[in-house]
Order: sequence, then C-alpha cells, then structure tokens
Amino acid sequence: MKTELAIIGAGPGGYVAALRAAQLGMQVTLVESAHLGGVCLNRGCIPTKAMLETAAVAHYVHRARDFGVVVEGPARVDYEAVVARRQAVVDRLKGGVRGLLRRGKVQIVAGRASFVGPHELMVEPVAADIGAGKSALLQAAETLEAERIIVATGSKPAALPVPGADHPRVIDSDGALALTALPKSLVIIGAGPVGCEWSQIFARLGSSVTLVEMLPSVLPRSDGDVGAELAKVLAGEGVTIHTGVLVTAIAEVDSELEVTLTNPKDGLETKVRGEYVLVAAGRGPLTEGLNLEAAGVATDAHGWVTADEFQRTSAPSVLAIGDVTGQALLAHVASHQGIVAVEKLAGLSPDPVREDRIPAVTYTDPEAASVGLTEAQAREKDPNALVGRFPLLASGRAVAQGTENGLVKVVADSRYGRILGVHIVAPHAGELLAEAVLALELEATLDELAKVIRSHPTLSEAVGEACLAAQGRALHI
Amino acid sequence: MKTELAIIGAGPGGYVAALRAAQLGMQVTLVESAHLGGVCLNRGCIPTKAMLETAAVAHYVHRARDFGVVVEGPARVDYEAVVARRQAVVDRLKGGVRGLLRRGKVQIVAGRASFVGPHELMVEPVAADIGAGKSALLQAAETLEAERIIVATGSKPAALPVPGADHPRVIDSDGALALTALPKSLVIIGAGPVGCEWSQIFARLGSSVTLVEMLPSVLPRSDGDVGAELAKVLAGEGVTIHTGVLVTAIAEVDSELEVTLTNPKDGLETKVRGEYVLVAAGRGPLTEGLNLEAAGVATDAHGWVTADEFQRTSAPSVLAIGDVTGQALLAHVASHQGIVAVEKLAGLSPDPVREDRIPAVTYTDPEAASVGLTEAQAREKDPNALVGRFPLLASGRAVAQGTENGLVKVVADSRYGRILGVHIVAPHAGELLAEAVLALELEATLDELAKVIRSHPTLSEAVGEACLAAQGRALHI
Repeated sequence: MKTELAIIGAGPGGYVAALRAAQLGMQVTLVESAHLGGVCLNRGCIPTKAMLETAAVAHYVHRARDFGVVVEGPARVDYEAVVARRQAVVDRLKGGVRGLLRRGKVQIVAGRASFVGPHELMVEPVAADIGAGKSALLQAAETLEAERIIVATGSKPAALPVPGADHPRVIDSDGALALTALPKSLVIIGAGPVGCEWSQIFARLGSSVTLVEMLPSVLPRSDGDVGAELAKVLAGEGVTIHTGVLVTAIAEVDSELEVTLTNPKDGLETKVRGEYVLVAAGRGPLTEGLNLEAAGVATDAHGWVTADEFQRTSAPSVLAIGDVTGQALLAHVASHQGIVAVEKLAGLSPDPVREDRIPAVTYTDPEAASVGLTEAQAREKDPNALVGRFPLLASGRAVAQGTENGLVKVVADSRYGRILGVHIVAPHAGELLAEAVLALELEATLDELAKVIRSHPTLSEAVGEACLAAQGRALHI
Repeated sequence: MKTELAIIGAGPGGYVAALRAAQLGMQVTLVESAHLGGVCLNRGCIPTKAMLETAAVAHYVHRARDFGVVVEGPARVDYEAVVARRQAVVDRLKGGVRGLLRRGKVQIVAGRASFVGPHELMVEPVAADIGAGKSALLQAAETLEAERIIVATGSKPAALPVPGADHPRVIDSDGALALTALPKSLVIIGAGPVGCEWSQIFARLGSSVTLVEMLPSVLPRSDGDVGAELAKVLAGEGVTIHTGVLVTAIAEVDSELEVTLTNPKDGLETKVRGEYVLVAAGRGPLTEGLNLEAAGVATDAHGWVTADEFQRTSAPSVLAIGDVTGQALLAHVASHQGIVAVEKLAGLSPDPVREDRIPAVTYTDPEAASVGLTEAQAREKDPNALVGRFPLLASGRAVAQGTENGLVKVVADSRYGRILGVHIVAPHAGELLAEAVLALELEATLDELAKVIRSHPTLSEAVGEACLAAQGRALHI
C-alpha cells in the first residue's frame, strides 16, 4: 500500500488530523488497532460523561424534594441500563466519526502498525472495530509506504508500583467500564480529574467511595482554590478523602481489598478498604511495538515521543500528536495538534498550540475548569499579580438553581490587567470557561472582560464580578 | 431631606446604579415603593428561574429511566413547596441586596416619589419591603432635594385590549406567581421569552398548556432558526402552539376560559380553552404619579422616558435607566445603563450600552440565547453575510447528556469574517453566549473564534464548529 499521509491511531488526534488533511486535499490512510475515536470516545471522556449524566439524574432524583417534587417510593440504579445507555452513546458517536471519515474519503485500515523505516510501516491485521468494508481489512501483514507519517497512538494508564497491585480487583478506567454491577465500595487512587469524576459517579450511584491522593490536595495541578472547592463538594456527597499519603500496599482482607496509606512525613499508616481499587494515577506513552527506532524517532527519558511546536519529531518525515507526545494529555489538545501538524504540512501558517491557553475541565457536578496560570504561577512571575474571586453564593442564578458551592477566580498581570488565568468551579464551568479562553487568545484585560454585558441571571456574571473584584470594585460582594 | 443623587426605584437598574455611585463616592438616596430588587428579583427573572429549576427536576425525574435510574412509584409536584422554595430564593437574594446597599452606605427610603421640580421630589410614605431600620421609614410626606435624580421605575405588563380580558382568571406574571395551586390548564398569550418560560414551567409541572402568538413564530424577535428550534422543544413537551393569530375575545364557558383566536388573513376563528389565561404580551412604562412634567422630563408617544446614550433626559438634572426608557427591557441592560449613567456623572468615560452587543436569553431548557444581528438583519446590510450552523446532534457532549435538540448559528460579515451575531439553542445557552458577547465586544473574527481551543467534550465546541461551517470547513458535520 502507498499513501501520502499515514496516521497511526484514530483517536481525537488521529481522526481529526485525517479529516483536516483530507479537507486540504491530502490522500490519507488511517491505521487503527482497536476502536475509532480512541480512548476518549471509547474508554475515556465520552463514556464517563454519559455515566456522570446518569449520576446527575440520580442526584436530582434524590434531591427532588428540595425543589418541591415529591418522589413516592424509592429510586434505584439499573446498572445494566446505565451500561447499555453508555454504550449506545459511544456507538452513536463512533458511527458519526466513521461517517465523517468516509465522507472525507479517508482510507481506514484495521491494523497494528510498526515502523520499518522513516517512510514505511508494517501493518499487521487485527480485528479492530472500524466498521469498514472488506477492502480495509487486511488478509496478511502489508507494508504501507507514506510521504509523511503521524504517530497518534495515545497513552495508557500507568501501573501502580505497589505490592498487591496485581490483584484482579485492582482496576483502571478500563476495568471500571467493564464492571457489570455497581461496586459496594471503592478506593480510588489519584485525585486528578479522572479520579474525581469516578468518585462522583460511584458515590452518586450508591457506592461507598474513598479517594486517595499522594499530593497535598484534590486536583493537585489546579489552582489551590479550585481543588479546595471541589474537595468540599465531593466530601459533601459522602466521598472520604485522604491527601498527602502514599499507597504502600494493597492486600485482600476478609474478601475486601485493604489499601495501606503511608504519610511520608511521619511514616504513620492508615488502612482503607473497598471491594475494588480503581487506579487513576498517571499515564504512560503507548509506543510498544511501534519500533520508533527504525524511523529514527526519538523519545524522552519517560518514553514520550519528542515533538516540536509544529509536532515534528526527530525524524523529518514523522510527526507526533496527542498523548504520545506527553504534552497535556487532553483530547482537545490532540485534535488541535493534529490540525496544526497537517496545516503546516500543507504549507499553511497555523499557530502552534500554546500551553497557557489550553483549557482543562474536570467534569464533576459542579465542574472545575481552568485555563492559564494559577495564582501561584502568576505570583512567581509577578508578585503583585491581580487576583479577583467571586463566590457563587452571591450569584442570583446559582441561588435560584440551588447551587451552594463554587467560585470564579481571575488572575491578571499587575501592569495592564491582562488576563493570565481563569479558574472556575461551577455547574457547566467548562462552558463558562470558553469566554476566558477567548479572552486569553485575544489578550484581553480585566477592563474589557468587566465591561462586557452578561445576561442576568447567568452564572457568567460571576466572571465579570471576579474581574471587578480584582480591581477592587466588585458590585455584588 | 437632601442628597447628592436620588434614585427612584431599587430594581436592577436603580440598586446597581446606587452601588456604583456609592463606590465612586457619591451620597445616594434610593427611594423604593415596593420591593428591593424590583420586578426582576421579586416577580420576574429570579422567581421564574427558581420555578424553571423545579420544572427541570420534575422533567429529569420523569425521564430518569432513560438514564438508568428507576423511580419506583409516582412523582408529584408539591406546589406549596415549590412556592415556598421560590420565595426562599427571592428572600435570600433580597437580603443580599439589602446588605450590599447597607455596606455601600446608601440611604434607602420606603416611599413613592413624584417630581416637584427638576431637583426636588415629594416622597409619600408607603409600607415598602426594604427591610431597613426606622430611620428610613417616613412618618409623613417629605421633600427630597437632590443635585441629580435617576428615574429607574421600570415597566409593567400591558393590558390586553380584548373583550373579557378583565376576567379575574385572566392573569399576568404577577398573577401566575400568586397562584397557590397548579392550574389544570392555561392559555398563554405571547410567545416571547416570558410566555415561553411560563409555558415550559407549567407544562413540565403537569398543566395542559396552549401558547398563542400574534406574530408568525415563537420568539418572533429572535433569529428564525432559534424560534423554530424552541417551538420544536416546547411542542415536544406537549405545549400546543398557535402562531400568527390574534386574540379577539375571552369568555367564560363551562367554568373554563375560552379564548377566540382569529387568523388576520382569512378571518377564520379557532377557540382554545384553559382554566387560566396568562397574558405575557408587551409591557408599558411605569411612570404613573411620577409627575415627570414638573421636572420637564419628556416621554415619547408611548410614554417611555426619552434618554440619550448616557441616559440623560430632556431635564439636565434628571437621568433615566432601565425599562422606563423603553430600550431593551432586560435587567442586565438596566444595570449597565445605571453604571454608565453614574460613571458619566462622576466624570469617568464609560462606553454607552450598544444595542448590538446586548445578550438576551430565554431561560427554557434548552435555553435560547442571542446576541447581535440575526441572519435576516445581517443580510439586509450585507447580502453575502457568512452564516454557519452546527446542530447539537453532532456534539459529543450533547449526545452524552441526552440532548436531542439545539443548534449554534454564527453570522459574520463577508469581508473580514467579523462576528455580527451568535444565536444558540442549547442547555446553558446563556452561559455559552458569554464567549460570543466578548467576541462582539472585541470585534473578533470567525478565524479567531475558530482557532480557540475548546475543552472536549463541551457544548462550546459547537461555537467553534459553527464558525468553521461559516467558512465551509466544518470538521464534525
């Protein structure tokens, strides 16, 4: 087989790059070894969002009386139906991706690719879920020659280097999605976005959840106020949280899994228990069997593929996008890197993805969403950085909809009031953040963001008020 | 009494103007004859939003099984509890406004003001709900002298000039809020934002609702696609819709109210019935008893107070803000006009409120939110205006959360791709719109809005896709 552009991996990096490349007139072959849509669509963002929606419905049913709606009789979770709905969502979106690729005339090949040289892949046939016709299913291994090759293979959950971590009920996200019944209890290791989302899903569906984090706070990579606010939310819904502790052992005791937590400061041990242990702590590159050396593609000390701002690797014909590069492991970053990579190949002048303009969302309810610098990061560069906070308690919309927690925090430079970061804990914070990302992109100032007219009553008024607060002229606090 | 700035009316125009004026060092006296917070807080935006939230919870309880949550036994609406919760929300926010005014050292006077001259008001004592100490309750009528006076008295529902409209079960929003039991059925007259919101509230709580509009479509002042989409949503929830018909009579028949609808084209009549008729068609200025003539304040032919872009009336010492000016009857416009008015008085250089940057939201579920020019308005000026649409059916987030309806529509000028208008029907469309309002404020282009990185999966991705669609390069449709 021969092609102009070969892309390895049909996740949000690979399939979007393929669509954009096809739009720009390139002949594209997309090689996928598992599922169209990758981890995001099949085992990450989308199925967890579908489950979070069920969790939200369960939560509203339980809280219905607070709103004047009386549910006579108990409510229960039909876990089989939850799983079926989740799969229906995934299947529908996967069908959508397949349709888009077909319309873009992208050739999809079900196969596992490895480099033979900088322009050549060996593709082994596998029974991947690409839904394509026979033409795309290989009878035997074939070579695929390509002018350019994009590596978009993604990442995988990192294993926990702890005794007992090989117990079959120590699972990762994939294992959580494979459950056919609601666990009675779980210990979730890692309080990043994934750990927080799973905590809320299982807690709201009725499991007893313990959330464990090695670093000192929930969402340790976010602004401190955001982590503290989300911790309050999760604790309020019954999640038991342990931060600043190392997991040092897992063992089966009385048919439960007992997890030993060790405080690194004083060596004191705590034991927590669950039917399952869900590990959501770190990810590693998916490069096994790719034979990157054959193409001269360099990786860093941790195995991530090294890529420059236009996603070029050390091999001139090979690019890398998405998780496999180790840069911000987020679906939307992978997609944008894919677009940047192929636009650059096509001779356009795309702006590289700027790390300080990448939004990140934890899809709990309320959501936690951030873009740009945290207060601490801003103060390192500019000790007088302006910071404004607005608690949702003071928002008319939040009160009307019964939201008790949440805040908006805006960080700006002290000289011009230029927006450096925005951090939000609120219902739909991920949507509220879009305005902030545009503000960073257009280098807007506190003044500009404060004078925009926001609809009343909306939560977005809180963004304007936080900007006013940063200037010492808040109106509603 | 003497003051620097007297403000008549403590609604979102008056109280925000008072807070900003106090911040700028002015001595402020706020005269209110009914409730702190005005119609918005007491009888408009806020109580309806509180009821819409109950309606949403009822809707989710009914749809719970779709998400895998099984509610054993029936659900019912405890209307007394709904009303109590709504009042608790209002009271809490009203307490907040009172606290802000107190902290700002704004003097609040419970009274009904009328002009004696351009610098003088007569204030009659009334038992207004201002929660202030005795000092602010007048024993007898007093005159209030002020250097400047701001009229912020707002508006009131217009009466329906139709035989039978004086029946006690023909009500307006105030009457709807006074109901102590859920009506079996209602005919709602006027399919603007207020009529649509009440339609969904009552339909979701269990009433049988007929919605009637004189103009050819639901949300007749919005972009056509928006009105059509919302009509689909309401019809899907059981609301019977009649558009393009005049209400020509109301009569009690068999203890119900029968409303006669006449088609102005062919004169054909249709009769619809309900326990109540809710009139949500038009508003008029609240200037009765103000004696504006004594100050030389001019009004237009419909009685709205004439104000320029800095809210100055024909009397040099008198300003007018909010609904009473007849310009965009929206709480957030009143607030911003109030800020502009007092900043200008204080010698600052505020930008006047620009009509083409005012967001407007219909708070149904999904919400309908718009800013800027509709497609039709844009094409009048620029026949080649660029238009991009993205249906939420193609959004991963929408599919994951079970949203079937909705769209984003972007309108831009054909020369530079400058954003002229954005129209959204989506869950939280009012929040999604914030980005669009900023885009208009900063005169952003399709290119700029399209290249912003949006979190995946969020509904805000649809805004980017609509921009790409306007340029003929959508990725996900």
